[in-house]
Amino acid sequence: MAASAGPEIERLISLLAKLPGLGQRSARRAALALLKRRDQLLTPLSEALAQAAERVKTCTTCGSLDTTDPCAICADATRDASLICVVEEVGALWAMERAGAFRGRYHVLGGLLSALDGVGPEALRIGGLVSRAGDESVREVILALPATVDGQTTAHYLADRLAGANVSVTMLARGVPVGGELDWLDDGTIAQALRARRPA
Amino acid sequence: MAASAGPEIERLISLLAKLPGLGQRSARRAALALLKRRDQLLTPLSEALAQAAERVKTCTTCGSLDTTDPCAICADATRDASLICVVEEVGALWAMERAGAFRGRYHVLGGLLSALDGVGPEALRIGGLVSRAGDESVREVILALPATVDGQTTAHYLADRLAGANVSVTMLARGVPVGGELDWLDDGTIAQALRARRPA
Repeated sequence: MAASAGPEIERLISLLAKLPGLGQRSARRAALALLKRRDQLLTPLSEALAQAAERVKTCTTCGSLDTTDPCAICADATRDASLICVVEEVGALWAMERAGAFRGRYHVLGGLLSALDGVGPEALRIGGLVSRAGDESVREVILALPATVDGQTTAHYLADRLAGANVSVTMLARGVPVGGELDWLDDGTIAQALRARRPA
Repeated sequence: MAASAGPEIERLISLLAKLPGLGQRSARRAALALLKRRDQLLTPLSEALAQAAERVKTCTTCGSLDTTDPCAICADATRDASLICVVEEVGALWAMERAGAFRGRYHVLGGLLSALDGVGPEALRIGGLVSRAGDESVREVILALPATVDGQTTAHYLADRLAGANVSVTMLARGVPVGGELDWLDDGTIAQALRARRPA
């Protein structure tokens, strides 16, 4: 690609291009930005990556990422241990935390069931969820999975698997998102929001 | 932002968010992708950055980036030393090299003159260019600067500064880009392409 750039820069570009959201062109721009701002950006990023590689681990209880195991959320005694919120990935857990509306614990599946991609139940953190749900302190499992085919397939499968445990299994409401203009919403969302209408 | 993620991940996200093309949200996605693929991505990237920080330097002749000084292009005796192609930044040099149509040497200005951003001639690598152009082996200086107001201001200024040297000063042709549909071109490009028309 940039034959003149030398193998070190080439390698940096090809690694940056593997990040989600960065293609070959934006990886080149990122590499140049890094090389232009060595002390403020290149060296700190290199060190932050090395530190993350060394210190961040997966929580053996919930599957989240943290420097401690159990993670800060699982270890936090002020959080409601009777609620488990099931999410696809750590990114969804962070989104829930930013929303600030949930004070229970989490369970990170590590993906969704997908016939197309050949992802079966054994590839996900499902056994651990079922055993956690079996604990008598747990009252409710909230399935906060995406409103996609794979998300809904996974939710149905989990509801089946959790049927034996003494917990209620719920899922997030569907409807018009905050700030959502009806003009811009897809038909499925409008139909679901209409079906689930409530007194004003 | 992601209060639950711990300071190491927070720091990684905030550094990634400083890269061009990555915002807060895509930096989070990138951080998760890195943490999911430690051995294939996180550790290699950390090492590639450390190596780049240590080994990549600026060529004191042309201003390009390489692990050697002079850079591989300035040191390449098979390249035509009578041609100097002036570019704004190293990214433009890489683009010229990918096009594979130029076999001379380069001069990286390190920016463009800009009254708005307060960038004057002293902030750019202009003295070095004038002194290189004064060498009797140099016959032509090609200004490969962007077709923007700042690019054209800089080109005019450089043409003035180089007037004393015994070189012809040229610039890239303007016209319809390859694959360009007239429907999608701006009026300025169409007008320039029409003015510079040539026999078919």
